[in-house]
This record gives sequence, C-alpha cells and structure tokens, in this order.
Amino acid sequence: MSEPPDFSNWSCPIPLRDYPAIVMGHGGGGKLSAELVEHLFLPAFRNDALANLGDASIVPLAGQRLAISTDSFVVRPLFFPGGSIGDLAVNGTVNDLAVSGARPLYLTVGMILEEGLPIASLARIANDMAKAAQTAGVQIVTGDTKVVEKGHGDGCYVNTAGVGLVSVDTDIGPTRAKPGDIILVSGTIGDHGTAIMSVREGLEFQTTIRSDTAALNYLIERLLKAGGSAIHVMRDPTRGGVASSLNEISLASNVGVVLEEKAFPVRSEVRAACELLGLDPIFVANEGKVLVFVADSRAAAVLEAMRSDPLGRDSAIIGRVVDQHPGMVVAHTSIGASRVVAMQIGEQLPRIC
Amino acid sequence: MSEPPDFSNWSCPIPLRDYPAIVMGHGGGGKLSAELVEHLFLPAFRNDALANLGDASIVPLAGQRLAISTDSFVVRPLFFPGGSIGDLAVNGTVNDLAVSGARPLYLTVGMILEEGLPIASLARIANDMAKAAQTAGVQIVTGDTKVVEKGHGDGCYVNTAGVGLVSVDTDIGPTRAKPGDIILVSGTIGDHGTAIMSVREGLEFQTTIRSDTAALNYLIERLLKAGGSAIHVMRDPTRGGVASSLNEISLASNVGVVLEEKAFPVRSEVRAACELLGLDPIFVANEGKVLVFVADSRAAAVLEAMRSDPLGRDSAIIGRVVDQHPGMVVAHTSIGASRVVAMQIGEQLPRIC
Repeated sequence: MSEPPDFSNWSCPIPLRDYPAIVMGHGGGGKLSAELVEHLFLPAFRNDALANLGDASIVPLAGQRLAISTDSFVVRPLFFPGGSIGDLAVNGTVNDLAVSGARPLYLTVGMILEEGLPIASLARIANDMAKAAQTAGVQIVTGDTKVVEKGHGDGCYVNTAGVGLVSVDTDIGPTRAKPGDIILVSGTIGDHGTAIMSVREGLEFQTTIRSDTAALNYLIERLLKAGGSAIHVMRDPTRGGVASSLNEISLASNVGVVLEEKAFPVRSEVRAACELLGLDPIFVANEGKVLVFVADSRAAAVLEAMRSDPLGRDSAIIGRVVDQHPGMVVAHTSIGASRVVAMQIGEQLPRIC
Repeated sequence: MSEPPDFSNWSCPIPLRDYPAIVMGHGGGGKLSAELVEHLFLPAFRNDALANLGDASIVPLAGQRLAISTDSFVVRPLFFPGGSIGDLAVNGTVNDLAVSGARPLYLTVGMILEEGLPIASLARIANDMAKAAQTAGVQIVTGDTKVVEKGHGDGCYVNTAGVGLVSVDTDIGPTRAKPGDIILVSGTIGDHGTAIMSVREGLEFQTTIRSDTAALNYLIERLLKAGGSAIHVMRDPTRGGVASSLNEISLASNVGVVLEEKAFPVRSEVRAACELLGLDPIFVANEGKVLVFVADSRAAAVLEAMRSDPLGRDSAIIGRVVDQHPGMVVAHTSIGASRVVAMQIGEQLPRIC
C-alpha cells in the first residue's frame, strides 16, 4: 500500500470561512455544517446518492430501493425530561428513514463509552433504546462498543445507522418542493431544544418542559396514505430547527417559502423559556416533528390525517411555497411585518442531539 | 410518553465482574467486552439476528439476505505507518461484511469531531476514507458530523456502518466450525497492533512496522470460489487478535482448537517489537487478515487461492478443529509443550482501532 498523499499543505478549494480548525459551529446544523459537507466531504466522497443530501440516502439493492441513514448523538445531559440519549438515537434514525418515505426496518448501534460511566447508566440507555425500537417496530440487529479514557469522551456517545425500504412509487425529497405547496408541521415546535437548555440552565417553570422525542414512522405512514404523490417533501426539523430545514429545502428546490408566524404551534412554557434564554423557537431543535410540503389539493386531507394521530394532534399549516425569492424563507410576523428567516452560521445550542 | 423505568438501583442478573462503572477493558474485545454484550446489551435488545453474534448480522430483506454491520473507531494516533483512522474505518466494516459471506455495497459515516481538530487533518481522513472505499468497490452514501467541546473527544472518532448482500447458498458463521476443519490465516499476524504501539512508544526498528489495514472482500471472493460450501467460518481477527477470535469461535461452535505456534506467520520486526513491549502476537490486533475454517478436503485449494492474491501471499495453515476440549484453544509451542490460549479478561492494547 502506498503512502497517503501529503495533506500538510492542504487547502480547501473554497475556504471554510477561513477556520483552520473545527469549531463548535461545524456541528450545529447551520451554514458552517453545510460548508463542511459541501467543501470537504462531498468532494472527497463524491457519488450520486450522497450528493442528493436527503436525510437518508436511497440506493438500489437487488431491484428494491433501500434507504440508509446514520446519526451520531452527543447530547448532554444523557438523561433529560421526556427522554435520554437512548430514545433520541433510535427515534432520530427511524425518523430520518421515515421522512425519506422509507419503512424503517433494522438499526445498528455503535457506542463510545468514557471510562467511569456507571454501568447502571449504560443499562438505562440500552433499555431506552430497546423500548424505543419496539415502539417504532424496528430491530436493533448489530452493535459495537468502544471505550475511551476518562477525559476523552462525555459518558456516552451513540451512533445509530438504519435501513428501510422505499416503495417504488414514492418520490419524496428536498428538491421536490413546488410553488403552491402548503407547508404543515406535525405539532408544537422547539420542545426538545428548550427542554435540554432548561435542564442545563436549571430553569424551572410551572410545567416541566419535556423533549418531544418520538418515532414518527407510523404517523408518516398515515399521512402518506392520505396525501399520496401530492406529498413532495418531508423533513424532521432537528438541529437548527424549522428555520434551517426550510432554508435547506428552499435552496434545494430553488423556491421561496413564506411563513405565517402566528400559525406556529408553540407551547406557552416553551415560548417563556425561549424568551428567557434569548432563543427563537423556529431555530430550536425538535425530535418528534415532521415538516410536510403537500400540493394544495391534498393539504386538508393530510392535515386531518396528521391530527388523527396522537403524535400529530397539534398539527398546523404554517406556510406555503412561492415562486418569488427562490432560496429564501420569509416570515410574516404577528405585527404584520415581514422578516427574512436566514440560516444560522454556527449554532444556537451546542450538543442538543 | 411515560417516564423511563428507574434504573438507579439496577443490577445485572449476572454481575459484570462487580465493576460498577465502565473500565478500559470493556472495550478491549476480551472477556469484559463479551460480558457487557452478554449481560447487558443482549438482554436489552434481544432478537435472533443479534443473538447470532457474527461480525455482521444477516437479516431478511425483500426476499434477499442483507448483511449489516457497524464499528466505531477511536484509534490513537489518528495517523500511523500504513494507514489512518480513515482507512481503518472503511476497511473494518468492509471486512466485517465480507467475512460474513456478504458482498459489501454501501457504507455510512458518522464523525464525532473535537473542537480544535485541524481542518487539514479532517480532509486527510476523508480522503483516506474515499480512497479505501474506492479500492474496496463500495460507496459511502450518507454521513453525519457532530462536534464536541475540547476535552470531550480526541480529535476524531469515526463510526462506519455498512450493508451488503449474501448469496442464498452461503452459510458461514461462528457456530459452524466442525472437528476436522483446517484453520488458515491469510498472512502475518500482529502487524496492526504492533505498528500502533511502536508509534506510541517511539520504538524504532530497521524497518518501520506498518499497519496491515486492507479491504479483504476481493480476497474473500476468491477463496469462497475455491472453497465453496467447505468454508464454514471466516473472521477478521481485530481487537484481541487471533487468540480472541479463535476462542469465540471454539465457544460458539462448541469445538476444540489446536494451533501449531511454529506455523504462525510473524514478521521478524513484529516479533522483536512484541518482545520489547511484552506482547504476544497472537493477542495483537490485525486489520487486514482473515481466519478461515475449511473442511480438510478443500484446504489446499483455499490456501492456494489465498496465496494467489497479493493480500494473501503469506497465508498459512495454523491449526485444526478437534472434538476434544470444546470451547478451548490449545497451542503446541515450538519447544514441544502445550499451552492453553485463554481469552484475555481486559485489554492488552487500548484504543487500537
């Protein structure tokens, strides 16, 4: 085997905003993350499936369409109101497969444990993963565990990868949004990120804010049945929240997005916490919500299907796709003004998932 | 969603050697790793595919047999003679699929980066992954990047998961070793672990010891063609080396293994380094070698096929399967004595892969 090429003088074709080293924002799901993908990973790994940049990749396999997805989880703390890194890791990959139109089937689990993690914590995480997998109807079929020295981890990092099948007539993806599409969200926004930040900051409210971590595959099956081919795009707005997901989709489809701020479903305690923390719920991570772009003709039917599912009770229409200002998301505020909802550069909330 | 059960007083049905917390040995691929799997993960995740404990899981998918595997890599240093964490991560998962009899097809990549990692290092790692994938004929189709604060990682941890297809007539697995089987190894042992330790300890020899990291899928295709259904077990002896792999197989198949120490192919510089470091090459990790259990009748043909491949030039017959001492590996030493080659409790070499 020959020596690897010398990268000591390596420089990026388009500089990564002149950062010579990784900063927290490279993991934030905003512009810096996107630049790392666009200017470093894509040129290296170049292939059609990867270039599609969906939540999962869809590849041919023995005459079928296989969806594959992976996600690492570094959330802190490991346990929080409404869930743990265990639920999150299972639901996150299940949802990435489901929003690509796939039926999730099998998961893998890779654990990086830090020396000193109590065995009882690991057992609780494994148990949470098992229960989440059972709820989602998927099987955890293989795993791997590595241990790193104290001071080189943070208790437990979890990677899940998953596969599922996409039926031949499903064609859902971030490039398929069309002017006229109605944009729905399956419930209240900002719950997960606010729950995590409230725990970290020791905030207390009358009601404990709980993460919304949940597997969306059955809800999505239901709305696919109601919407059929009128459903053009689905995405789970995790890191970077609804704002980042909509920006990505508007860019990928080269369309404009118009939002109605007063239509956003936001819990009152989440709104209060966001005000205290200086956050905007539209940028805050969700772990059990899906955004759906659907042709106007089927929007009412899809909304009804969503609301009939316990996980979609608070579903709402929050905006629409226009052919003006392609690649840009504009929100009509509650006081009648308009503002551009730009993608964040770095990250509002570190290590949220 | 209901509260997770209270595991604060959780105790394992069979105590994990009374460790209340994770120790480095839980990641060493020895007995402690096995206990974590057996007493913690298996009871939690319980299902048939997982219980099989192969390098990859083989599951039904649309009338096909899909192999799935995952591995996290925490090797330090990130770059070493003969390779990097990038090659290692691709080759490791390719090999886990290949030794299960699968043709590896698609990989996912999950990165956990530590704040401060030079972008140039990340670019070099991505490039190594891309080249390794190309050499192995697999595609990296999706990925994820997370960033953790300085002091909560070690530059870069990489997870790869992969899928491949197993042909219907292939039946290879750790439970299928039979008395009379001949055991082959595809080349010199202990190269990878010794290379890593030599770098860490600053040892210098006349020849630099290089990691053997390599994708074995084409070599394995060749030997499957030569051996057919006479090939009963294949395994890549990584963490814990040849000794741990053979112990696992002898236990899983409930057979005895007899080795001839003088038949082990070991490079002279590896032997010298192992003597200096107090290591036994049979316990040292390999990253480009496969152990093959084949019926006596086809052993010569398989050995010839292995040797005709550049990656199998130094292949050798190192032992055989017997019906005595089931679950135990015994080595005939070069001075004519016999010794039991027991599985290690913890780990000889931390963070070797």
